[in-house]
Amino acid sequence: MKDKSRYLEDLKRVIQEGEVDLRIIDTLNILNSKENYYTTSSCAGRIILIELEEIGGKKESNFIFKSHEKVDYKNIWRIINEYTGNKMLFLIVNSSIIHVVCKDLESAKRLINISKESGFKYSSIFSFTDKIIVEIRSTEKMDVPIVKDGKIYPSEEYVMMLVEIANQLIDRIKKKIETLNENLREM
Amino acid sequence: MKDKSRYLEDLKRVIQEGEVDLRIIDTLNILNSKENYYTTSSCAGRIILIELEEIGGKKESNFIFKSHEKVDYKNIWRIINEYTGNKMLFLIVNSSIIHVVCKDLESAKRLINISKESGFKYSSIFSFTDKIIVEIRSTEKMDVPIVKDGKIYPSEEYVMMLVEIANQLIDRIKKKIETLNENLREM
Repeated sequence: MKDKSRYLEDLKRVIQEGEVDLRIIDTLNILNSKENYYTTSSCAGRIILIELEEIGGKKESNFIFKSHEKVDYKNIWRIINEYTGNKMLFLIVNSSIIHVVCKDLESAKRLINISKESGFKYSSIFSFTDKIIVEIRSTEKMDVPIVKDGKIYPSEEYVMMLVEIANQLIDRIKKKIETLNENLREM
Repeated sequence: MKDKSRYLEDLKRVIQEGEVDLRIIDTLNILNSKENYYTTSSCAGRIILIELEEIGGKKESNFIFKSHEKVDYKNIWRIINEYTGNKMLFLIVNSSIIHVVCKDLESAKRLINISKESGFKYSSIFSFTDKIIVEIRSTEKMDVPIVKDGKIYPSEEYVMMLVEIANQLIDRIKKKIETLNENLREM
């Protein structure tokens, strides 16, 4: 685990800079306190408005709005109406994702099992080129095209319904993170 | 690879019954022709209408419509309008997914690398409890709530736009599968 101390230093810095979602700091700290693991990147789950050049691809994507907490649909509706770009605008809920370097396959296996039991059903070994990296990932997601060719497609009422669902997903993610923390502590 | 012959028999049966998406049969055959691999399940990628009891969870989900090919928005619009259930109805594009049992970690690693190079960026080791299973998965996705509490939210024009995007995703998936097949053949 030769790079662990460097990653812990990095994490300390980004936490100080307020760039880590508070909700997931406990999870990162629990994992990093264990000998066999350290975290390299994370997202607590979030609601975003993003402009995309083309569907599916990641090229030319640009965040217009980002929140790790529940949001007021009025804000979202206002931002959509203020959008003047000519790309596609999507309302997206991202599930929570944590990348964890594991000492060996045995510790990776244990982490995946605990994560799946905690509701993070899409957890898997993401990479093992030089390091074994587990991706802890939950299933919550929503991807809705909102603006295309300068036209706003949903009504205000529709956006209210979409945001209601997005907020429910954020609640579900929160609960899963709490369960994960409990299970990781007992690991 | 003790269960391989059983899975190949199963596959032969479901192909005969027309239950495997034609588009992905080549991929399955190429993989199964190799000593170190066999496939256990697959989806070529699809456009679905699904009713859900609750968001995010899988409980009480029910397919209303399913297509592995591009669709005519008029069909989708008709089915939405004929829906009389009281659950939420979602229009979803699922990325393609193939589960492949691998002989050892080395062959799993090779398969993941080829899959990622072919555009299946979310490929990973999905399970390794008794067998090493690689999940080959692409990134295309869309999840749009359409009906809630008996109310159809999008306009016909909006559904037309959503289906246009869904069809573009199916095209992207097709191209990726072709690239994957080429790369797997040369493996």
